[in-house]
Amino acid sequence: MAAQAALKTSGANDTRQRLIDVAAQLFSRHSFAGTSLQMIADELGVTKAAVYHHFRSREELLTAVVDPILGQLRAALEKAEAQRTSHARAEHMLTGYTALAVRNRTLVGVLAADPTVIEMLRSQGDLEDLITRQVALLADLDPGPPGRVKAAVVLAGIAGAVGSTGTDLDDDTLRQYLVEAGRRTLGLRAPRRSVSARRSR
Amino acid sequence: MAAQAALKTSGANDTRQRLIDVAAQLFSRHSFAGTSLQMIADELGVTKAAVYHHFRSREELLTAVVDPILGQLRAALEKAEAQRTSHARAEHMLTGYTALAVRNRTLVGVLAADPTVIEMLRSQGDLEDLITRQVALLADLDPGPPGRVKAAVVLAGIAGAVGSTGTDLDDDTLRQYLVEAGRRTLGLRAPRRSVSARRSR
Repeated sequence: MAAQAALKTSGANDTRQRLIDVAAQLFSRHSFAGTSLQMIADELGVTKAAVYHHFRSREELLTAVVDPILGQLRAALEKAEAQRTSHARAEHMLTGYTALAVRNRTLVGVLAADPTVIEMLRSQGDLEDLITRQVALLADLDPGPPGRVKAAVVLAGIAGAVGSTGTDLDDDTLRQYLVEAGRRTLGLRAPRRSVSARRSR
Repeated sequence: MAAQAALKTSGANDTRQRLIDVAAQLFSRHSFAGTSLQMIADELGVTKAAVYHHFRSREELLTAVVDPILGQLRAALEKAEAQRTSHARAEHMLTGYTALAVRNRTLVGVLAADPTVIEMLRSQGDLEDLITRQVALLADLDPGPPGRVKAAVVLAGIAGAVGSTGTDLDDDTLRQYLVEAGRRTLGLRAPRRSVSARRSR
């Protein structure tokens, strides 16, 4: 079959991607510290040596799991920061962040609150900077401590809620409800149909 | 000194409580799965045997850490459920939950999202029931999926925000900002000074 042939030709890449997917599942089920490379190998039915062929450590595998999400976050941030008004910046940050949270719903709630993961991301790179910029955009309509607390509630709330309410709503519906909740918290008017760009002229 | 004498007379209880406190710190720093009994013993400068004298397993220690918080949650729930109007029930649930989250700020954000902890609490008891009742009270003004999503954002948002914004605000101020954020999300009017009881007559 075509799928079988495709599997054969892209065998190594395929195993790498399946390792990433299985690791993501196990991290979200058992936390990062509670997931060993052996557990990942067992779940996929390969040897630990096969895992080491692709990833030298559990940390390297975590990086491979988290990197695409951080990439999406960076893209959403940059798009939001390019907007002209406070309102449009907050609105874009909220919708971009919500979209990535829903897209990665099994992972986001867990990893965003896993102290081992946060510690590793902090030591490796720009997580602190990304979070600070997000909070700044969301709190821009109400700078100062109350606005920053609201922004923190929205970010943590959306990350946590995608996990807990994840099972019974489809992506589009969940995203819409989360954005509405976020707008209320932040005091953002709902834009007329994707009108935030027009409004800022 | 008096403190020294007090330490001697209540030695066993004191060690037990210090074990609980140190475990709470380490769980929130390294996650539950990332904290061994040996790490807890080392941090307190006692032997592993001394830990086993008080707790037969890491799970038993986690239960001792979490039980007081679950007790506070149950009390807040019962107080909220005893109110007469939807508005007063949601308001009491919000303020009671926020107070316990701020009181336990190092722990709540981490444990509320630690999959190993949630799994253990679920298998042991009534966590599912507590969460369902909380969401029902908070979503009561707006039942149905959008209201439940808002309730989930508020619960996860407050739990997450107490950790991330925990360092620079005192308890009273943080509690006030969080309750204001929660009220906005849920669409609750701010009560006149503790007037929710009066209003429900």
